[in-house]
Amino acid sequence: MRLSRYFLPILKETPKEAEIVSHRLMLRAGMIRQQAAGLYSFLPLGKRVLDKVTKIIREEQDRSGAIELLMPTIQSADLWRESGRYDDYGKEMLRIQDRHERDLLFGPTNEEMVTDIFRSYVRSYKDLPLNLYHIQWKFRDEVRPRFGVMRSREFLMKDAYSFDIDYEASKTAYDRMFVAYLRTFARMGLKAIPMRADTGPIGGELSHEFIILASTGESEVFCHRDYLDMKVPGEGVDFSDAGALASIVETWTMPYAATEEMHDEAAWNAVPDAERLAARGIEVGHIFHFGTKYSEPMGATVTGPDGKEVPVQMGSYGIGPSRLIAAIIEASHDDNGIIWPKGVAPFDVGLVNMKPGDADCDAVCDRLYAELQAVGHDVLYDDEDTRAGAKFATMDLIGLPVQVIVGPRGAKAGEVEIKDRATGARETLPVGDLMARLSA
Amino acid sequence: MRLSRYFLPILKETPKEAEIVSHRLMLRAGMIRQQAAGLYSFLPLGKRVLDKVTKIIREEQDRSGAIELLMPTIQSADLWRESGRYDDYGKEMLRIQDRHERDLLFGPTNEEMVTDIFRSYVRSYKDLPLNLYHIQWKFRDEVRPRFGVMRSREFLMKDAYSFDIDYEASKTAYDRMFVAYLRTFARMGLKAIPMRADTGPIGGELSHEFIILASTGESEVFCHRDYLDMKVPGEGVDFSDAGALASIVETWTMPYAATEEMHDEAAWNAVPDAERLAARGIEVGHIFHFGTKYSEPMGATVTGPDGKEVPVQMGSYGIGPSRLIAAIIEASHDDNGIIWPKGVAPFDVGLVNMKPGDADCDAVCDRLYAELQAVGHDVLYDDEDTRAGAKFATMDLIGLPVQVIVGPRGAKAGEVEIKDRATGARETLPVGDLMARLSA
Repeated sequence: MRLSRYFLPILKETPKEAEIVSHRLMLRAGMIRQQAAGLYSFLPLGKRVLDKVTKIIREEQDRSGAIELLMPTIQSADLWRESGRYDDYGKEMLRIQDRHERDLLFGPTNEEMVTDIFRSYVRSYKDLPLNLYHIQWKFRDEVRPRFGVMRSREFLMKDAYSFDIDYEASKTAYDRMFVAYLRTFARMGLKAIPMRADTGPIGGELSHEFIILASTGESEVFCHRDYLDMKVPGEGVDFSDAGALASIVETWTMPYAATEEMHDEAAWNAVPDAERLAARGIEVGHIFHFGTKYSEPMGATVTGPDGKEVPVQMGSYGIGPSRLIAAIIEASHDDNGIIWPKGVAPFDVGLVNMKPGDADCDAVCDRLYAELQAVGHDVLYDDEDTRAGAKFATMDLIGLPVQVIVGPRGAKAGEVEIKDRATGARETLPVGDLMARLSA
Repeated sequence: MRLSRYFLPILKETPKEAEIVSHRLMLRAGMIRQQAAGLYSFLPLGKRVLDKVTKIIREEQDRSGAIELLMPTIQSADLWRESGRYDDYGKEMLRIQDRHERDLLFGPTNEEMVTDIFRSYVRSYKDLPLNLYHIQWKFRDEVRPRFGVMRSREFLMKDAYSFDIDYEASKTAYDRMFVAYLRTFARMGLKAIPMRADTGPIGGELSHEFIILASTGESEVFCHRDYLDMKVPGEGVDFSDAGALASIVETWTMPYAATEEMHDEAAWNAVPDAERLAARGIEVGHIFHFGTKYSEPMGATVTGPDGKEVPVQMGSYGIGPSRLIAAIIEASHDDNGIIWPKGVAPFDVGLVNMKPGDADCDAVCDRLYAELQAVGHDVLYDDEDTRAGAKFATMDLIGLPVQVIVGPRGAKAGEVEIKDRATGARETLPVGDLMARLSA
């Protein structure tokens, strides 16, 4: 993408309303714009990151055997009356009446609707296990939305729902998502630690939050240092091997890890002093096993091998991609701006033409722009006639992993400079060596 | 995807509530499920088609230079009060109050919001032309939603908005979208005819609907037969060449074409009898040029080359991907089910194992399943132990372009059968020849 034809509204001043660094940087980098309290547009740069994040989530959900569908944002209140949550949910639920005065709502989550889909079609244990997920906008009417997309009212959510014949199979479905989540966050460059969690309005008896450590985190968390060095399963992990999954989950839940609400002083004191890590954390995923909480009142039953009807065992599994973007920035930035982990960067490479109009600069840039794209790189090509300082500041602010800088002297000599955004390391190399270097 | 692990809830009976063939077939093929009046879930097969359709739309929008962002579904009523449409829009707009009793609405379209984004960041004619688009769920509270996703209340829409300094540049932006639309529909296997159209609540003086002919169409249309043979611009079309675009648009608007509302008996009578085509049509896209209708009241101005502030000239351009799926089916089906054009089929190939458990069948199928996927085919592999008749009926119903049928006798002899869904032609060939045949 040529910057001259792109829409990247960088803000020079730091917006006053932004209280946390991710919110400030997303506004300054032209990623988002607030349309009303807790309602955000994702501007083109933000949309690209959102797409990268959802692509990784989708790939890992698919790999684990979950199947994607798409439920509407608007739901009928009647469904929620069946589960008993319509009255329980309180003012966070955005309630709506249509022109015929029927009660609707903007879905804050989809347990009821997916259970309704399940009960409409599935009759036999032979069709299990089943895990259905979608990635759709949700709405929760927070009293005081803030922190940008970290706590917005309308937000994107990937929510998966598992259906199984008994507790054992259902626990395997839970383990499957647990492992998929470990892989998902690792691919985004995040170290996410699963912590035993409270179940809140979703309900159930088994639940983990996936927490990343960031000094600006919203809550206090306590965990064993071992988590920092634990190895995330590779892409060859066998999602049909219940034993292998259970053993991974065991490994990842053995050392102490808890959020403030679930913190257990006695267990914490048993962790050797030097191994204790008390830090701030941000929740990036939450998984629940809740058994028959919805299937029983809503009549989602299947016939088992013995011919008897039983309500299915269910779990639900959420990641908020829009919120996740803010969390990634909280965990990865410096004074100059965002530092995108490779997997989620809006563009892989920023190509900076220091002097558009200079024949050497233009020739080198045009050649590199074509070559980089030909091998599949997403390139943002700064072809605008602006000051050097502004060019560097913008590139650092938007945080692309690699900058390729083409100045008139270098271009004449057949050289370009590359800069690694994360380390700040700069190096000059022959134009002809660049492609090999970037594919390394 | 193995059918045994997929969620494809085929209905044996024809649903009574479905009045048109696309609605019937989408329900029977397990593509959609109605959750409430005018609210549909896209089940996994439907979601796949929706993704294919939006991918083509996105590629052609990007090719034309439009830039993707994503605006929220919920909007503030205040924005619509600025343009004067809040009161005008009537009961089709879903109006909402949040917990603080602020007036919100579920966006039926986004002229106001995108104009607000524009005026917040763009100051100079140098930043034009600009075309911003998004693909987002919209809501229009139809009095009587029906025909499935053809006329649902919540529906997906790609809406693009162009901003230009003067009428001439703005007309080029219009032409750009016009050409992008011709290409978009052609890639979906549709022959879409642009027809001069009424502008309705969007406003403006220049507008075309893109209409496909289908005997089940919602309205009567009148056009010259020449349209049936006109050639759609190839992917090399130069979107920066205003003259070339204008000439394509001229070619495509010269012969008579009008919807019922815009029908002109005198002009129609001037078309030779043998060249007249009066038929039923379905609207699949709608483009508008409306000048300063929103930019003026909302103060979206830029400084021109002469230093004076002028309100920008705007247009908007819509395609409804969810509705489009129904339109494609209306135009492409037979008594046995859907016939997907290649570009939008949920899977390219259906691989049918006639006797799972038979060693020869399983070996041939496993090999073909792996080979087909390795070269990038999306394959639905029917590995279920069901009757031959049911297998064939399902494959025909869901309409994948090519079926590869592996029976025990053929497999033993090293042969498979392929069936072309559109023509019904069947042919037996050696297993080793299949890959070359499908890549042809």
